[in-house]
Formats: sequence, C-alpha cells, structure tokens
Amino acid sequence: MIDWSLYVITDAKLSRGRSHLEVLRAAIAGGATVVQYREKEGTTRQMIEEARALRELTRQAGIPFIVNDRVDIALAVDADGVHVGQDDMPAPVARRLLGPGKTVGVSVDNLEQALQAEQDGADYVGAGPIFATLTKPDAAPPIGPEGLAEICRRVSIPVVAIGGINEENAAAVIAAGAAGVAVVSAVVAAPDVEATARRLREIIEAARAR
Amino acid sequence: MIDWSLYVITDAKLSRGRSHLEVLRAAIAGGATVVQYREKEGTTRQMIEEARALRELTRQAGIPFIVNDRVDIALAVDADGVHVGQDDMPAPVARRLLGPGKTVGVSVDNLEQALQAEQDGADYVGAGPIFATLTKPDAAPPIGPEGLAEICRRVSIPVVAIGGINEENAAAVIAAGAAGVAVVSAVVAAPDVEATARRLREIIEAARAR
Repeated sequence: MIDWSLYVITDAKLSRGRSHLEVLRAAIAGGATVVQYREKEGTTRQMIEEARALRELTRQAGIPFIVNDRVDIALAVDADGVHVGQDDMPAPVARRLLGPGKTVGVSVDNLEQALQAEQDGADYVGAGPIFATLTKPDAAPPIGPEGLAEICRRVSIPVVAIGGINEENAAAVIAAGAAGVAVVSAVVAAPDVEATARRLREIIEAARAR
Repeated sequence: MIDWSLYVITDAKLSRGRSHLEVLRAAIAGGATVVQYREKEGTTRQMIEEARALRELTRQAGIPFIVNDRVDIALAVDADGVHVGQDDMPAPVARRLLGPGKTVGVSVDNLEQALQAEQDGADYVGAGPIFATLTKPDAAPPIGPEGLAEICRRVSIPVVAIGGINEENAAAVIAAGAAGVAVVSAVVAAPDVEATARRLREIIEAARAR
C-alpha cells in the first residue's frame, strides 16, 4: 500500500537552479511520501543518470519512485512505476511492459477518463487540475474540489489531486476525498523546500484527522 | 542474418510533407532492406501510433524495423531492435531491457567507440559521419572512407556507414568494407523516393560484386 499523502513531482525550470536530487532530498526530509521524476528535456542518457540518482535516494528513504511518461527510463533504473498522461503510452501497454508488480498511474482531467483509467488497470489516477496552475499552461480547465469529489466517489483506486494545490487549499482537497496531494511548484519552487513540504504534510494529516 | 545493404532512416523535417509511412513504403518498394524510425518530436502516444504503422508495414515487407533511441517505443510495438547514440541509453541497458532476441545498434564516431560498442554487445554499429552531412548539424567531423575502412577491419560485427552518403559516393563506402549504407536525406528527401532507393540499391549491389 502506497502512502499517497504528499506526492512531489520534479520540474527543472521551477527549481531555482537546484538539482532534482537536492530538491527531492529536502522534500523527503520534510515529509514527501512519493516522488515523481518528470523531465521533458535533455538526452535519454542524462535522464537515466538523473533517474538513477533519484532511485538511490528514494530507495534509501524507503519511498516509491515514479517516472513520468518514459517507460524506458523507469525500466532502466528499476523505478517503482510510471505515470502516464493522456498523450503518453496507453496504460495497458505500460502495464504490459512493466509487469504486474509495478505501479501505473494515469493523469485524468475528468470523470470519464478516470473511469477509463481504472478499467485500463491503473493503480491510481492523478486528477486535475483542481485549481488554476501555471506549471502546465496547456492544462484542461480546473475541476475544483467538487469535480474531484465526484471522481473520488466513482472510482475505487486512489485519487491523487493535482494542479494549483498549496498550503491554502490542500485541506479542501483532502476533505474532498483525495488519497493525497501532488505538487510541483508549491514544493520545488519554494525557497525552503523542506519546511514547505513539512507544513503541507501537516496540513494534509490534520485535514485527514478531521 | 540481417541484410544491411540499404538502411533507410526517417526524418520528418526532410520528408517534404510526406508521412513516414508513405516515404518508407516507397523506399521499401525501391529496395530498402532495413528501416529505422527516428523521431525526436511529438508525444509518446503519437510515436507509438506512427511506429505501430511502420511495424505493420515492415512486417508485411519482411524487413527489420529498428527504433532510434526510444526503447519504450520499441517494446510497445515489438520492433526488431533499437539504435542508440552515445547520448542515448547505454547499449548494455538496452540489451537487458530488450532481451537477447532483439537487435541493438550503436552510433560510433570513431574506432574507440566502435570497439566499445562491440564489447558492449552491440549487434552492429552505425559508423560516421563518413562525409559532411546537413542532417545532423552537431555531428562529429567526417571520418571518410579511410576511417570507415579501419573500423571495418577492427570490429567483427557489421558496420553500417552513415553520413552524407548518396548515389555519388555509396560505392566507395561499400568498397571500404561497410555491410551497408544508412541514408536519411538521400532517400527521404528525394522527389521520387522509390526510384532513388532503387538506384542506390543497384549501386550498392554493383559495388559489392566488384
């Protein structure tokens, strides 16, 4: 059982010049429970080297390591799984290549995609954007905590909420039924990554205890 | 045993608006013996769809289908192998992910890389650029037929020559000992792809008969 509480996703452009390794080490120290390597630029060789370092970090920390889109990178470094968007490898193909022991997550914009992902054998969905976000300028319109709540009611796999989530609104997302909160800028762009992750994690735990 | 004689590599920008499927169908009709899908742009989903169509085409034609760089795409469509550059997945990792039954090729600029590729378990090397080429502006300096001949003498796996090869110089490349000729622009940018491939194939066969 994966603890989806605080799912931190890399973004080289938002990291203030800090390496993914540096940012994620701090995020994990602050309480990140899952980590995703998301990199769209650079060579395959560079991605493998970076992912290998993050694999080592997450193994030592005992938390799951997910690779965005690139099943080849995930296989090369023995990641715990992949996360695929609607424009990436179809989930059933990713499942076939990774095998039953790995985690496959799917990004969904709406209920229909969430139901499809569940049917396709996804282990979890990343649902959103919940709120407006600058990280993905091409994202679909925000679904809000209401849209999220509907997805949480209708699918039985864990729903991780993503898109514009921060310390102000994380509690509402957990209250809507999300298994956890996925963040990019709220954590990786923070001046103090560890402290920010810690506060977010506390907010999530407090909201869940309610 | 793969017939490396005429190895045609896709390039969307050079194809005069024609689809990879259209260009490669004509190239195969003209005598291409191996096909490589090389695509650096677009989503993983688009690549899988394109590669799937090319997999079908090459299967019907009975010729090997190789995917450049992306082992995930190769696995998804059951390609016959991958071709990796020095900045792509290391050959031993590609071999591990693809299994022993698939073909792994490696791009090499010089003899040292060729010997390393052979040691890494590559099934063939793509050596070059032989001549100056506009297709890869970041390519290493041309090694010429002399540099090619040295690589052919020193490695025991097939050496496919690449870089600036056309109807004028293909015979010299075969004379230097190459198992075949890899072409991008000479074929995919040709107004009549089929006729061009046919002439190149004839030149290669004639050079080999000498």
